[in-house]
Amino acid sequence: MGQLSNLDIANECDNFPYYTDDEDLYKAALKDYYQFRVEGCESCLGYITSSVATKMPLTKDWNLDQNKKHLTFQPRTHHGEPVKDFEGRNKILAEYLQDVREKKVFRVLNGWRNELYPIYGPNKTLLLNMERSATPLFGVVTYGVHMTGYVKTPEGMKIWAPRRALTKQTYPGMMDNTVAGGLSTGEMPFECLVRECEEEASLPADVVQSAQACGTLTYFHVRDARAGGETGLCQPECQYIYDLELPADVIPKPGDDEAIDFQLLTVDEVREAIANGKFKPNCAHLLLEFFVRHGILTAENEPHYIDIVSKFHRKLEFPMP
Amino acid sequence: MGQLSNLDIANECDNFPYYTDDEDLYKAALKDYYQFRVEGCESCLGYITSSVATKMPLTKDWNLDQNKKHLTFQPRTHHGEPVKDFEGRNKILAEYLQDVREKKVFRVLNGWRNELYPIYGPNKTLLLNMERSATPLFGVVTYGVHMTGYVKTPEGMKIWAPRRALTKQTYPGMMDNTVAGGLSTGEMPFECLVRECEEEASLPADVVQSAQACGTLTYFHVRDARAGGETGLCQPECQYIYDLELPADVIPKPGDDEAIDFQLLTVDEVREAIANGKFKPNCAHLLLEFFVRHGILTAENEPHYIDIVSKFHRKLEFPMP
Repeated sequence: MGQLSNLDIANECDNFPYYTDDEDLYKAALKDYYQFRVEGCESCLGYITSSVATKMPLTKDWNLDQNKKHLTFQPRTHHGEPVKDFEGRNKILAEYLQDVREKKVFRVLNGWRNELYPIYGPNKTLLLNMERSATPLFGVVTYGVHMTGYVKTPEGMKIWAPRRALTKQTYPGMMDNTVAGGLSTGEMPFECLVRECEEEASLPADVVQSAQACGTLTYFHVRDARAGGETGLCQPECQYIYDLELPADVIPKPGDDEAIDFQLLTVDEVREAIANGKFKPNCAHLLLEFFVRHGILTAENEPHYIDIVSKFHRKLEFPMP
Repeated sequence: MGQLSNLDIANECDNFPYYTDDEDLYKAALKDYYQFRVEGCESCLGYITSSVATKMPLTKDWNLDQNKKHLTFQPRTHHGEPVKDFEGRNKILAEYLQDVREKKVFRVLNGWRNELYPIYGPNKTLLLNMERSATPLFGVVTYGVHMTGYVKTPEGMKIWAPRRALTKQTYPGMMDNTVAGGLSTGEMPFECLVRECEEEASLPADVVQSAQACGTLTYFHVRDARAGGETGLCQPECQYIYDLELPADVIPKPGDDEAIDFQLLTVDEVREAIANGKFKPNCAHLLLEFFVRHGILTAENEPHYIDIVSKFHRKLEFPMP
C-alpha cells in the first residue's frame, strides 16, 4: 500500500458526501438509501442501504414504503394497536432483532454484543434502544469516547497505542486509540471513559480523573470490508474526546481480550503508522485531530489544513442529544 | 438584556441556516441572495444581499443576471476584451471599488482599510484580491487569527481580554480576544499572529513563539447593526486558532489604537461577560471553543454540548485554500 496523506486519512473516515461540496453527488448518494423512521417521529433517524432494507423481514411492526423509500418501525400489540410507550417499543424491537439474528439474515448480527445503544429523536428525547451490532444496519448515530494517553518524555511526546486483538470481528490486528468505547443507553461520557479505561487498559479511576475533555469528533463513515459483515453500511458517529497525560510509570495493560498489547510510540512513529494504514480509520482520524489541537499539524506544514480540520466536526443530519 | 446561554452565543455567531437542519429554510434563505461569481470560475464565491447587488453600480466589468441571481465580475480592457491575468483583474477591481467608495454607495466602505484580502477559487488557486472593507458586500470568506492568552495562577486560569476602542467602526467598546487580526493576501497565519501580537498587544515575537496552533474556527455570520454599515451582510469566516500561556509578568498593552486596555479575568468573569453579551460575537464563540478544548465546558455540565461544538467548525460552501 502506498503512503496515505493526512487528507486521505480524513476522507477515509468521513467518507459520506457533503451537500455543500456537491449537491448532485450528495443527492445521488441519498437515492441509494432508505430512511429509517419510527412511527410518530418526523425525523429521519438513519440511512439504510437498499439491499439491507429490502432483506429486512417484514412483520406487523414494520412498514416498507418503496416510493418514499422509508423503512418505518411501527410497533403494534397482538391486537394491532400502536405501542406508544418507550419500554414497549424497546421490547418489540429487541425481540425482533433477536429473531433476525437467529435467522442469520445479516452477517453483522453475528457480532451480537448484548449492549443497548440509544437512538434520539428531536429535542434530545430518547426514542429507542437498539442492540449495538444492529446499529450499522439502520445507519443510526452512535456515541462513544476516545482517549489519547500520552507521556511527555525527554525525547518529546509519546503516545500509547494498543493493537486490536486478531479475534475481533471488526478491524482485527489494527492499531487503536489508547482507550475507546461505546456509550450505552443511560451512560454519561466521563463515566463511560472511566469504565473503559479500567476494562481495556487497566488504568485506575484515580489516574483517569485527570483526563481532560476536549470536545467531540463527529463524522459520517461508510463501512468497508475491514469493519466485517455487510459493506456500504452507514455509520455516523459522535465521539467524546479526551486527552490524558500519563506519568512515565503508569503503563497501560490489556484488561480484557480487546487488545494484544500497548506500544509507546513517538509522534513520528504514530504518523508513519497512520500513513501506512495501520490504524483503524476513525482512530487515525482522532489522532490527526489530536495533532491539530496540539500544534503538531499546522497551517504551515499541512497544505490541506482547513479541509482536514473541517472533517473532524461534521454536522450530522440526524437528531442528536 | 437577559443572560445568554452558551447555545445562544454559538447561534448568534454562526447564524446562517444549515441545509442539514432544515432544507426548506436554507433554500428560502438562499433565495434572498445573489451569487458572487468571477467570469471563468464555476464556483459561487460569496452571497450578496439583493439590496446590495441591485445597488452595485454596473460597468463594462460587471454583469447582473436577475434570473440566475448572479453578480459576475467580468473584467474587460478598454477595447472590451476579457482580462484574464491575476494582476489585471485586481487592478480593475481596486479601481472600481475606489470609485464606489467615492460615490458613497455603501456605508461599509466608509471603513476603508487599505488592506487586501484573498479570494480563493477551486483547487486553492488565488483568484482575486479585494479591499478588506468590501468583503462583506460580496459575502466572501475571510481569514484571520485569534489567540487566547492565558495565565495559570494560584487561583486558577485567567484570560487576558482587551476592550475595543470606542472609536472603532465595528463593535466599538465590546470585549475581544487577546489578539485577533485579519490575514492579508500572501500572509501565513503564524506570521500574521506575530505581527498582530506586536501591533495590538505589544507582545514581543520571542514570547509569541510559544503560541500553539489549535485548529480553525469556521462559521457563517450574518451581520447585525453592531458590525456597523449595512445589515444582513454575509460574513463567512475561517479563523486560525492559537493558545498562548503567558508568564505572570508579561502584561499585554495596547500597541495601536485598537484597544482601550487589557483586563486579566477569571474564567467565571469571562463566562459572565459572555452571558451578558459584552464580547464581540465571534470572540465569544472562540472563547467557548477554548472552554471546550480545555475541559471547562463538558458534556456533563453543558446540555447543548454536541450542538455547540458542531457550530465551531462549519464546513463552508465556498472554495477555500
